Amino acid sequence: MIFSSTLLENAVSEFARLPGIGKKTALRLVLHLIKQDTAAVQQFSGAIAHMREAIQFCNRCHNISDTPVCNICSNHSRRQDIICVVENIRDVIAIESTQQFNGLYHVLGGIISPLDGIGPEQLNIESLVKRIPEENIGEIIFALNANVQGDTTVYYISKKLKNIPVKITTIARGIAFGGELEYADEMTLAKSISNRIPVENYIVTGN
Amino acid sequence: MIFSSTLLENAVSEFARLPGIGKKTALRLVLHLIKQDTAAVQQFSGAIAHMREAIQFCNRCHNISDTPVCNICSNHSRRQDIICVVENIRDVIAIESTQQFNGLYHVLGGIISPLDGIGPEQLNIESLVKRIPEENIGEIIFALNANVQGDTTVYYISKKLKNIPVKITTIARGIAFGGELEYADEMTLAKSISNRIPVENYIVTGN
Repeated sequence: MIFSSTLLENAVSEFARLPGIGKKTALRLVLHLIKQDTAAVQQFSGAIAHMREAIQFCNRCHNISDTPVCNICSNHSRRQDIICVVENIRDVIAIESTQQFNGLYHVLGGIISPLDGIGPEQLNIESLVKRIPEENIGEIIFALNANVQGDTTVYYISKKLKNIPVKITTIARGIAFGGELEYADEMTLAKSISNRIPVENYIVTGN
Repeated sequence: MIFSSTLLENAVSEFARLPGIGKKTALRLVLHLIKQDTAAVQQFSGAIAHMREAIQFCNRCHNISDTPVCNICSNHSRRQDIICVVENIRDVIAIESTQQFNGLYHVLGGIISPLDGIGPEQLNIESLVKRIPEENIGEIIFALNANVQGDTTVYYISKKLKNIPVKITTIARGIAFGGELEYADEMTLAKSISNRIPVENYIVTGN
């Protein structure tokens, strides 16, 4: 692409550095911003610059936060004895959006994946192990992706916790609501049969 | 989506205002920026804010520009007697990227489209009509999209120019390079036959 303006070219190449944004999309976005008034564009760039400068990670659960302890950890109307262990911040947002979980989180910052060079020491596992006796945690729920890396991570952490009296669970795997049996993969279908639940529980949780 | 950080939420909603960017994509982009160091994010937001403040439109051709007259208009190694008339800035970038056109441009800022409420008076048509005698233009080439609006615009401007001695042409329509005859629409195929060109010209322009 040949630009007649260096200002335009710089803005386009900055946008094109973002993941999943190519040169053409970047140009479309920049031309959109040119049509907006200066104040709106300043608000856009200001929100991003300010966010990057001021954002912190919660000391306790490693979630993203505006303060040293995030507003989930510091919310005393939440149960303080259950931790949901997730891979990243996106998972916290996904679970929070269900409004069904009322405990705390622990963000690992990734999952164990030797092929990608990610070992347990790069993840927030030590701090999780420390939290359990310190905060008197009664249950930890693993909400990790169902793949080899997720299973390895669950296995590794469970082993670390074997001398600590804490209930360890994992989120249910099964056929999604609205999912059709005939299109489900065999593994999921098999697990959904072996992990079947009494109908009275289903009606309570699934209505 | 429920966020545990207002800073994150603001940045995501600013990104989600851009065309074609939904909340989930916006979140992905913002989380990517959080992983970058502060200087890189400042460069990103700075490039955009600075671009919006400093960008101008060329006095002569209405192209986007860093200066009152754009670097295409002020480049004296380009032919000063041919104007290529385009709908918008994206078209200038597309034609410049071919490196085949060595004249000037005129950006209309849209095309005549009564259904969208865009009439000739909203477009940069008067300034085009003025430029032709003032700058001693010998030829204008219409490079507009081949649809009803494009044709209406060509017809309207041609009528305005009927007393001005200037050659008026339009870019060739036909089968694209690599395009297969059997999949071409009838209109394009019919036009490509009626506007056929001598083989010696084809070899010069098409090699």
